Amino acid sequence: MKIIELKKTFTESNDKDAEALRAYLKEKSVMLFNLMSAPGSGKTTLLSRLITDLKEKVSIAVMEADIASAVDAERIEALGAQSIQVHTDGMCHMDAGMTREGLMSMDLSSADIVFLENVGNLICPAEYDTGAVKNIMILSVPEGDDKPLKYPLMFRESDALVITKTDALPYFNFDMDKVIERVRRLNPAIRIFPVSAKKGDGMADLEAWLLEETERFLG
Amino acid sequence: MKIIELKKTFTESNDKDAEALRAYLKEKSVMLFNLMSAPGSGKTTLLSRLITDLKEKVSIAVMEADIASAVDAERIEALGAQSIQVHTDGMCHMDAGMTREGLMSMDLSSADIVFLENVGNLICPAEYDTGAVKNIMILSVPEGDDKPLKYPLMFRESDALVITKTDALPYFNFDMDKVIERVRRLNPAIRIFPVSAKKGDGMADLEAWLLEETERFLG
Repeated sequence: MKIIELKKTFTESNDKDAEALRAYLKEKSVMLFNLMSAPGSGKTTLLSRLITDLKEKVSIAVMEADIASAVDAERIEALGAQSIQVHTDGMCHMDAGMTREGLMSMDLSSADIVFLENVGNLICPAEYDTGAVKNIMILSVPEGDDKPLKYPLMFRESDALVITKTDALPYFNFDMDKVIERVRRLNPAIRIFPVSAKKGDGMADLEAWLLEETERFLG
Repeated sequence: MKIIELKKTFTESNDKDAEALRAYLKEKSVMLFNLMSAPGSGKTTLLSRLITDLKEKVSIAVMEADIASAVDAERIEALGAQSIQVHTDGMCHMDAGMTREGLMSMDLSSADIVFLENVGNLICPAEYDTGAVKNIMILSVPEGDDKPLKYPLMFRESDALVITKTDALPYFNFDMDKVIERVRRLNPAIRIFPVSAKKGDGMADLEAWLLEETERFLG
């Protein structure tokens, strides 16, 4: 298990770094998705399911960003997928320089898709372009249907919203229609995928979209 | 509904400000608890239950800190409790200066206990002393039992851990014994209260502790 200790990168422009990183990814034929969510929304369970479901079609690698521990990267590695853990030195987000540093420690020649599992947080990660081609936000049913009201920026900055743990819908007051309406008001173009990674419900639509966006970027 | 827009306070020492704030609270006979957790852990539902259960014994007021919206403060106000909403100008934490500013907008003469509902985030809030007398962390069952491994600082900085949504235990892989062991390894003195604010389970122990700590501080 590789663990990379990152320090804050000081650059003139994170946006310029992010653009440069996307050009580099295109050259290397690697798609990068940035996954953002609150702690405990089920990002690692979702990734585990995607790796298993898509293993005949694409090679998926994962960069896990956390302030401490390597528990998520170990879960991914146990599936036989390439995985590295980056530690953010207490910072609650990843920027483009940090993401590039993590990618440099990976074997990109054997990966079609890299998922960056950003730090679990609904605030700071939305403020930094990581260099990812597409941003995906995850909201789990137990977190509640008021989150678009409280964390609007992250919903605005995301290309897709995955609503996880839909198998728990019977046990929580979570109004799916209300969430979709609130999210669309913030971001009319966002794609929304309700899924249960545990049971498999809704995974096919999400997986089709991921492959379509990968195809579009890599050409 | 009062909404206070805060800006970053620049002070020499947040720790000094926090000490001064505790002295001020003591003088005013007001207990201040700082509630920290991830988004969607059930802080507002827990507060609603506490306000209802304890209304014959103490007068509870709430300061809701968020980056946007006033949905939580409105829920508290609907219960007839004093409630203000502070907006943190995008910041993911509250410091002592910001907390003092919020308190100055409240009617403290009619409150015995103020709960500061900190920004939903497991990282930044743990790094700042808000001036609260006791720190309480909330971890909800659906978030998973690996959180002490991933966010150790917040578990270390808290005087009590409330494990919420225990009514959802049958539907999630959440090993209560493992969590308690992991938390105690980080913080042997922490008080741990598993509760279901929805059903009422475990609330009596938590409420007794809150009243006991209030009594101890106010003398």
